[in-house]
Amino acid sequence: MLAEIITIGDEILIGQIVDSNSAFIGKELNKIGVDVYQITSIQDDKQHILDALEEAKNRVDIVLLTGGLGPTKDDITKHTICEFFGDTLIQNDKVLQHIEALFAKYIHTPVTDINRMQALVPSTSTVLMNNFGTAPGMWLEKDNTVFVSMPGVPFEMKNLMKDEVLPRLQEKFDRPFIIHKTVLTYGLGESAIAKKIEQWEDDLPSFIKLAYLPNLGRVRLRLSARGIDEKLLIDTIENKIADLHAFIGDIIVGYEEDESIELMIGKILASRGQFLAVAESCTGGKISQSITAYAGSSSFFKGGAVTYATQSKTDLLGVDRDLIKQYTVTSNEVAKAMALGVKNKFKSDYAIATTGNAGPSKGDGDVEVGTVFIAIATPDRVFSEKFVFSNLRERTIGKAVNKSFEMLFNEIT
Amino acid sequence: MLAEIITIGDEILIGQIVDSNSAFIGKELNKIGVDVYQITSIQDDKQHILDALEEAKNRVDIVLLTGGLGPTKDDITKHTICEFFGDTLIQNDKVLQHIEALFAKYIHTPVTDINRMQALVPSTSTVLMNNFGTAPGMWLEKDNTVFVSMPGVPFEMKNLMKDEVLPRLQEKFDRPFIIHKTVLTYGLGESAIAKKIEQWEDDLPSFIKLAYLPNLGRVRLRLSARGIDEKLLIDTIENKIADLHAFIGDIIVGYEEDESIELMIGKILASRGQFLAVAESCTGGKISQSITAYAGSSSFFKGGAVTYATQSKTDLLGVDRDLIKQYTVTSNEVAKAMALGVKNKFKSDYAIATTGNAGPSKGDGDVEVGTVFIAIATPDRVFSEKFVFSNLRERTIGKAVNKSFEMLFNEIT
Repeated sequence: MLAEIITIGDEILIGQIVDSNSAFIGKELNKIGVDVYQITSIQDDKQHILDALEEAKNRVDIVLLTGGLGPTKDDITKHTICEFFGDTLIQNDKVLQHIEALFAKYIHTPVTDINRMQALVPSTSTVLMNNFGTAPGMWLEKDNTVFVSMPGVPFEMKNLMKDEVLPRLQEKFDRPFIIHKTVLTYGLGESAIAKKIEQWEDDLPSFIKLAYLPNLGRVRLRLSARGIDEKLLIDTIENKIADLHAFIGDIIVGYEEDESIELMIGKILASRGQFLAVAESCTGGKISQSITAYAGSSSFFKGGAVTYATQSKTDLLGVDRDLIKQYTVTSNEVAKAMALGVKNKFKSDYAIATTGNAGPSKGDGDVEVGTVFIAIATPDRVFSEKFVFSNLRERTIGKAVNKSFEMLFNEIT
Repeated sequence: MLAEIITIGDEILIGQIVDSNSAFIGKELNKIGVDVYQITSIQDDKQHILDALEEAKNRVDIVLLTGGLGPTKDDITKHTICEFFGDTLIQNDKVLQHIEALFAKYIHTPVTDINRMQALVPSTSTVLMNNFGTAPGMWLEKDNTVFVSMPGVPFEMKNLMKDEVLPRLQEKFDRPFIIHKTVLTYGLGESAIAKKIEQWEDDLPSFIKLAYLPNLGRVRLRLSARGIDEKLLIDTIENKIADLHAFIGDIIVGYEEDESIELMIGKILASRGQFLAVAESCTGGKISQSITAYAGSSSFFKGGAVTYATQSKTDLLGVDRDLIKQYTVTSNEVAKAMALGVKNKFKSDYAIATTGNAGPSKGDGDVEVGTVFIAIATPDRVFSEKFVFSNLRERTIGKAVNKSFEMLFNEIT
């Protein structure tokens, strides 16, 4: 069972938006045993769309289109789809009512003709109601290939996929079993891990594939097993993962696809009734933001201070002014004082603090660009470590955030 | 002059990573007058790679490949490229020395055979040195089509593009002029803007294209002019933008491609020697993080407090406990007190504060999911407004962040 994702819109090709939709669709299809053979991003151009639809029809069983359904004039997708199916557009009354209701509740401006045109759909299509937006999804079939057109707005597309598209695909197609298991590691690079697990990897059966997915000091190992005997797949993958412990058990954080080290920290602290607080200088709020991106973070996260200006480290966290003078603001000593300060202010059990220089130019401190001091305060002690991450701002911030979670994780496990 | 981007790797197709590389490449090519005709993401499979290379060769002049060059075993790209070009792999000594130097400086583990294999390149390729990683870029040509293979790690690829690939493409190919101009707006939706500028849009000359790029309450209008007379393109696009003011001048924030409302706020405050501080509850650090993502934010940003727990609003910001009891923690009154508190603590001129419930379940307050109170403190006054954004956590946080910048922007302009 093969699928192709086609994203339509010049904005992807000229790079004004990143195509996050395809990743979501790929992940969801994979879970139900549908393989994505190719993702194709094409221009908002009639002939190009027609060519892509025809080519995809000959390659795969399922074609999922996103984009090109917005209310404004740069969108020609719907008319082109109609032409491909030799169909005509008709008004769908249920969609029109839905558009009018959405405008009344959230948008508070009059419904325009441009909006009303979104209720036009190909006459032979099955309309998939879009509860979160005005453009409906459309399901069509041609020569045994299913085509589904969805709007490109991510949260609208996501909900259409979950509520309408995936259930229909599962009902229509027989699919093999695909079992994925992800192993989240930290602290070792891709090639170092590869060397440690070489023997284990060589012994994988042919129906299991392994991929390395590195990201700023965290490497995910993804095992994918495919076949018709679901029990065999599950048993084999679980045995292989159990075996893996002997090779890299010390750097494994978790096993869930959406797991992360911050989520694991949260689960552990919440289960113990303990709390975390964070003081950030050079990471600028990204540690707090990474934690609060998860629902339920209030069960273990008290909050944080983004003490960007040097003075605020004293005013908010009570860091001794003389300490800053003596050691400079970017130092292990100040990082430790920040961690203790924020732990005290927020009455938490643990604290993380960062101070350093993410660059591109030297700041209040006098350390080289890319230097970050990370301190961890626990119920019993406080310590800090110095790192030199990189000469790129975004990368230094990202690595400092990941490293600080690693250090805390080591303390609580 | 047409290009195709091919990304290689199962991890994109099964959705474990989002393809942000293609957006970057598309943007950079566009700036130098190269059109991206298609982006194709394919499996890490020999035949699929060979097919994609052959098809792309017949479609375009330039093929840029990313991915499939990591040190571990899931990567077969380099051997397949060799086969496509009828070439063999040879060791490049300069690359090998570079790999050894990188390990010595940043990685501190021994260089393995797997790492050394990264110094193997097709014998007829021009090696493009990758200063930020171990896998080199490779430039090859076949039947008048240029092929460039780059590693998939974003910052490595970006630097290779800037330092090596773009200059070579500019030297090799004659290209038309492409002028882009982006107009950043806020506060009005896509269709409402379309209605306001309908007449203006109808009057655009045929060599200028307009696209609407909406994102959580901000809409970018992108004008693209293409032709051989650079002056005509620039003059026409500037005149059209000047005309646009009569239609939507009141909602225009800026005109630079990478501009954002937070960057504009920063420029204005820095030029006046004024400072901002931020108190975040439901936005969890994302406002601070959005500001500090930009280098130079210390020239106007004092810092912030992420007062996630109710108690911390009192402990850190001095919000009156009785006020919280009287109005609940999610209220205009508490938002205003938070803004004044953080402004006072950080000794700033302006402050933003947020409190609300991003969901998915009800928190300490008793407002419905998606409700956010945003307060702005200025040198003279403080005010707060209530919003109901959505029933999706990520979307509510994103919209609250954007809305808070809008409100502050209105105060300082």
